Amino acid sequence: MKIKELKNQIILKKSFLCVGLDVDLDLVPKFFLKFEDPLFEFSKKIIDITAPFVVAYKPNLAFFESYGPSGMNSLLKVMEYLNINYPKIFTIADAKRGDIGNTSKKYAQTFFETYNFDSITISPFMGKDSVEPFLKFKNKYVILLTLTSNPGSKDFQSLKILNKNNDNKFLFEKIIETSKEWKDSNRLMYVVGANQTEAIRLIRKKLPESFFLIPGIGFQGGDLDIVCENGFNNDVGILVNSSRGIIYSFTHELSFEYEIINSVKKIQNKMDKILSRKNFYNA
Amino acid sequence: MKIKELKNQIILKKSFLCVGLDVDLDLVPKFFLKFEDPLFEFSKKIIDITAPFVVAYKPNLAFFESYGPSGMNSLLKVMEYLNINYPKIFTIADAKRGDIGNTSKKYAQTFFETYNFDSITISPFMGKDSVEPFLKFKNKYVILLTLTSNPGSKDFQSLKILNKNNDNKFLFEKIIETSKEWKDSNRLMYVVGANQTEAIRLIRKKLPESFFLIPGIGFQGGDLDIVCENGFNNDVGILVNSSRGIIYSFTHELSFEYEIINSVKKIQNKMDKILSRKNFYNA
Repeated sequence: MKIKELKNQIILKKSFLCVGLDVDLDLVPKFFLKFEDPLFEFSKKIIDITAPFVVAYKPNLAFFESYGPSGMNSLLKVMEYLNINYPKIFTIADAKRGDIGNTSKKYAQTFFETYNFDSITISPFMGKDSVEPFLKFKNKYVILLTLTSNPGSKDFQSLKILNKNNDNKFLFEKIIETSKEWKDSNRLMYVVGANQTEAIRLIRKKLPESFFLIPGIGFQGGDLDIVCENGFNNDVGILVNSSRGIIYSFTHELSFEYEIINSVKKIQNKMDKILSRKNFYNA
Repeated sequence: MKIKELKNQIILKKSFLCVGLDVDLDLVPKFFLKFEDPLFEFSKKIIDITAPFVVAYKPNLAFFESYGPSGMNSLLKVMEYLNINYPKIFTIADAKRGDIGNTSKKYAQTFFETYNFDSITISPFMGKDSVEPFLKFKNKYVILLTLTSNPGSKDFQSLKILNKNNDNKFLFEKIIETSKEWKDSNRLMYVVGANQTEAIRLIRKKLPESFFLIPGIGFQGGDLDIVCENGFNNDVGILVNSSRGIIYSFTHELSFEYEIINSVKKIQNKMDKILSRKNFYNA
């Protein structure tokens, strides 16, 4: 999928919402367990009822992997379902991979070819040769971890780096600067946590053109208005993710569809108002 | 598996060799492709012919994942085969995972329960709450990326961190110091590349008790003598990995078993001599 199509979809659907598929069979309505493939059936249901309001889906690999080979088979079916029925919705493998070159190449084949995702989240920790194998794929994107939303982001990502120029940048800034020099870096997007409000502004200055994937809205407590104020560029340029805050937002199993649609509509409605206020529909 | 058993095995087998299972069907002898499950059959063959000389196996997740759900089924069979037939050989999921807490918990269940590995390689990039869910498992181990063997290790891992005390440590040193404060940090091991010779000495000083997983011997060119000189502790304390340098060390398909056994024996023999010279057999 081309990034231009994602930008079109955002304006068309009045939404920059990504729904995270963290499918946990302990948390889905119980009647799904009667299906032969409850992981697929719950994902399919979530997709069908939320698709009008979202521009991206982000299956979380850990949840599918934890069910063993059959979980990966469910993921394969989810991806086939998405690519056939919703080809204009952007797909993100939330996998956070990264390894030496020949291994990263295998991971790239796994997610871009075997499972046919549009993009994958990658850890920058092992540097250039661990990321570049993913960047070789045309119309595929690498979403680089930069400054995450969890408490542990303080441990290393926001340490200050000693610099010749004594300008003492944060590690996450250094990651951004270094990544821009990699081959095909135009295929890079960046993960920034919704709660990292000041950093979002700083990172947007450094990366005026790039898309950001911003998790941490909803369950993790980020504020959508501030995220948009600090993160928007001329093309919107952000995808805001909610996972548990949407797919487990029901209080009763019988009304779960209605309640999930309400949750997703509520966020999309807020996004629509922000896009309108910021004049994106008149551009 | 308890770490004490790994230490016993090293002395018993006169080896601290780990064989990496980077199984690529483009590289295995062609007749394996006639089997129903060539990934499993080649892995099984490698295990059966090398087991007398090694103390650990390290399946590389990327290679199994790239074959989709069936590749994960092959991995499941490899792990069952190892756990039933070679219960005293230490197993490492080379997966390099790490995510926010609830997701890391799922990855821990995946590798420690679903696939029943003894240990997993983990990226420290997302900090404490991304690693601690793995440390909760008794008799299971987390092997933390510290300073890897690839060129990209220079990009971030060996940057100098600005410090109050002006002692300007490397990021990988900071990772070590921070990780020691995590709950159940006695279940941590550390990945250090074989070519990082000076760093191995420095890291051993900081971690006199810990096991190191040292990849980069063989194909990547690390020197075993220097690695041992700098990396040994009183319990040996290192696992040295070779992947491609062993499992693809054959020149003819007909003699592949003989050639692989020769490659692995050659390394084990060298290890035996070093262990003997360093008086580990008299302890």
